[in-house]
Amino acid sequence: MLFSKSFIPILKNNPSEAVIKSHKLMLRTGMIKQSSAGIYSWLPLGFKIMKKIEKIVRDEQDKIGAQELLMPTIQSSEIWKESGRYEDYGEEMLRIKDRQNREMLYGPTNEELITDIFRTSVKSYKSLPQLLYHIQWKFRDELRPRFGIMRCREFYMKDAYSFDITDDEAKFSYNKFFLSYLRTFKRLELSAIPMAADTGPIGGNLSHEFIILADTGESKIYTDKRIFEVNSDNTKVNKESLIDLRKDFEKYYAVTDEKYDKKIFEKEVPEEFRLKTKGIEVGHIFYFGDKYSQAMKASVDYQGKKEFVRMGSYGVGVSRLVGAIIEAKYNENDEIMKWPISIAPYECAIIPFIDKKNNTNLEKSKKVYDHLLKEGIEVILDDTDENFSSKIKKFNLIGIPFQIMIGNKTEENSFEFKELNENTQNISLEKIIKIIKNKKK
Amino acid sequence: MLFSKSFIPILKNNPSEAVIKSHKLMLRTGMIKQSSAGIYSWLPLGFKIMKKIEKIVRDEQDKIGAQELLMPTIQSSEIWKESGRYEDYGEEMLRIKDRQNREMLYGPTNEELITDIFRTSVKSYKSLPQLLYHIQWKFRDELRPRFGIMRCREFYMKDAYSFDITDDEAKFSYNKFFLSYLRTFKRLELSAIPMAADTGPIGGNLSHEFIILADTGESKIYTDKRIFEVNSDNTKVNKESLIDLRKDFEKYYAVTDEKYDKKIFEKEVPEEFRLKTKGIEVGHIFYFGDKYSQAMKASVDYQGKKEFVRMGSYGVGVSRLVGAIIEAKYNENDEIMKWPISIAPYECAIIPFIDKKNNTNLEKSKKVYDHLLKEGIEVILDDTDENFSSKIKKFNLIGIPFQIMIGNKTEENSFEFKELNENTQNISLEKIIKIIKNKKK
Repeated sequence: MLFSKSFIPILKNNPSEAVIKSHKLMLRTGMIKQSSAGIYSWLPLGFKIMKKIEKIVRDEQDKIGAQELLMPTIQSSEIWKESGRYEDYGEEMLRIKDRQNREMLYGPTNEELITDIFRTSVKSYKSLPQLLYHIQWKFRDELRPRFGIMRCREFYMKDAYSFDITDDEAKFSYNKFFLSYLRTFKRLELSAIPMAADTGPIGGNLSHEFIILADTGESKIYTDKRIFEVNSDNTKVNKESLIDLRKDFEKYYAVTDEKYDKKIFEKEVPEEFRLKTKGIEVGHIFYFGDKYSQAMKASVDYQGKKEFVRMGSYGVGVSRLVGAIIEAKYNENDEIMKWPISIAPYECAIIPFIDKKNNTNLEKSKKVYDHLLKEGIEVILDDTDENFSSKIKKFNLIGIPFQIMIGNKTEENSFEFKELNENTQNISLEKIIKIIKNKKK
Repeated sequence: MLFSKSFIPILKNNPSEAVIKSHKLMLRTGMIKQSSAGIYSWLPLGFKIMKKIEKIVRDEQDKIGAQELLMPTIQSSEIWKESGRYEDYGEEMLRIKDRQNREMLYGPTNEELITDIFRTSVKSYKSLPQLLYHIQWKFRDELRPRFGIMRCREFYMKDAYSFDITDDEAKFSYNKFFLSYLRTFKRLELSAIPMAADTGPIGGNLSHEFIILADTGESKIYTDKRIFEVNSDNTKVNKESLIDLRKDFEKYYAVTDEKYDKKIFEKEVPEEFRLKTKGIEVGHIFYFGDKYSQAMKASVDYQGKKEFVRMGSYGVGVSRLVGAIIEAKYNENDEIMKWPISIAPYECAIIPFIDKKNNTNLEKSKKVYDHLLKEGIEVILDDTDENFSSKIKKFNLIGIPFQIMIGNKTEENSFEFKELNENTQNISLEKIIKIIKNKKK
């Protein structure tokens, strides 16, 4: 991509309406644009990042055998009346009347709709377990939407649902998602801690939130630092291995303020391991047994009778993750953001010093650009005549992990190359390509 | 995928509520499930097909230099009041009041929102042309939704918008999309004819519909058969080559009944080339100059003054294409559907004859299955104990282009292999793999 052809409307300064750093950075680098209160358009830069996150989320769902489908955004109120949540949900549910005066709504979550799909499709326990997910826009009519896409109204979410015949099998499904979430966040270079959580309006009695640390987080968290050492790399998708993983985490105290108890914290956690900080919720999983299947009569044939299926639900905020990653990784003092290469909008930026009277540097840059493209590297070349130092400032904010600077002093095959937050080196194009490809692995 | 683990709820018979063949087939093979009038969930089989179509549509947009972004589904009424379409749009627009009593709506199209994005982002003509697109759910509150996903309320659409400084440049953009649509439909193995069309509520004076032939189509079409011979394979993305392509098509009469004139048809088209038939609209492109940019004050600096940009819009119904392809390709008499391999839900089906007392055939099948997976072929194995003939019937409907039948007579390395609508052959697994891979190219 040539910067002059791109659609990346950069702002010179931080926008005054933004308070937290992800909101500031996303507006400033033209990742998003607000279209109305709590509703955003994703411009090309932000869209690319979100799509790459979506792909990783999808990939980790597929790996545990979940199947993707897609439910609509607009739902009938009927099924919500069956489950009893139509009244409960309150004003956060966007209620709609269509031209025939039918009561509809914009789905804030999909337990009802997936249960309806399941009950008309699956008749026998032999088809279980079923793990189904979709990645779809949701709407929650927040009273005071704020913080950009972190607390907005229309948001993009992966929600999965599991169906099993026994509690024991259902917990196996729950644990599969538990593992898949750890793997997902790890691929996004986030340290997410699973924390026992309240179940709220979803219901049930087993639930974990996945929280990443960030100073600007909305949740206070209390944990034992040793929890960061729990490793799931060797966990296998079988019952025993997953139970062991859960136990490894449960050894350590880790709760949000909802469940915090000072006495227990101080009793269980030696002083040197105590961590009180703030965090952001990036995922939430629930096991709620037959709460919905009983209300909505979703049963299968099992041992000669109808048995209500046991269900869980599993959410990851895909659009929210974009903001959460910025909150975790953006160095606001130095104005440097660095995206993990797996989700960076481009892998490498070429930043030439351009003199209006002399286009030698631009020509050098185009050669490098063509070469990197041929090597399968996603690259953007800043061919505009903006001055060099403001180009650098701009690319530090955009957060592409690698930069090649091209100026009058650039020699035949020795380029000023920099990984963000590291030192500049002068090396050949071949070495640059090798370094970038190595990082992508 | 093992069929026993899949979520493909097949119906034994055609559903009584469906009239046209795509609707029947999609319900019968568990591709979709209606959730309320004109609103559908896409189950895994249908979802896979739609996603593959989406990928081809996206790829052809990228190839002409269009950039992807994503606008939200819920829009503010403000911008529609600016353009003057808020009242015009009538009851097909789903109007919503949020909890603050603000007038919102579910976007039926995005001319207003993209114009708003453009006017706050682009200031100079030097950034033009801009071709922007998104693939997003839309809602049109049809009075009588019917024919499944062909005339539904919530639908998935690619809509693109072009911004240029002069009429001449804008027509160049228009022609780029004209070409990209021909290429898109060709990759979907559809013969789509571009036909001069009325512009309707979008406005403007230049417009083409892309129509595919299908007996069940909703539009009557009148054309010169020689139009099918026009070839865009060698067309290049430059002004002259694209103008030539447009001229090649314009040589031949091709209109829908809206624009049909019997006298002209019979005067211009020699009798042997006259074709009167029915068709389905799969794409629609519009050029409307400064209709929206003037109303919404979207201008750029050009030659010392503000100039309103010239715009066009370009739609492809992604969800609708799934149905349109079925209408064009499903042989309802023989109950055989065959998906083009580029968008087939799986590339090959393995169909074993399974005897409950003897699992030799299932074991043979699993070996073949593992082998094909290793070769990167998307394969589904029917490991259920359904009887063999009803398995065949089922897979003829599902439409996976290749089948391997495994029975008691199957020898060491000679398999009964069939491409749908072709003869069965007995060949080795290596040959099978070669045939499938060749087809994928």
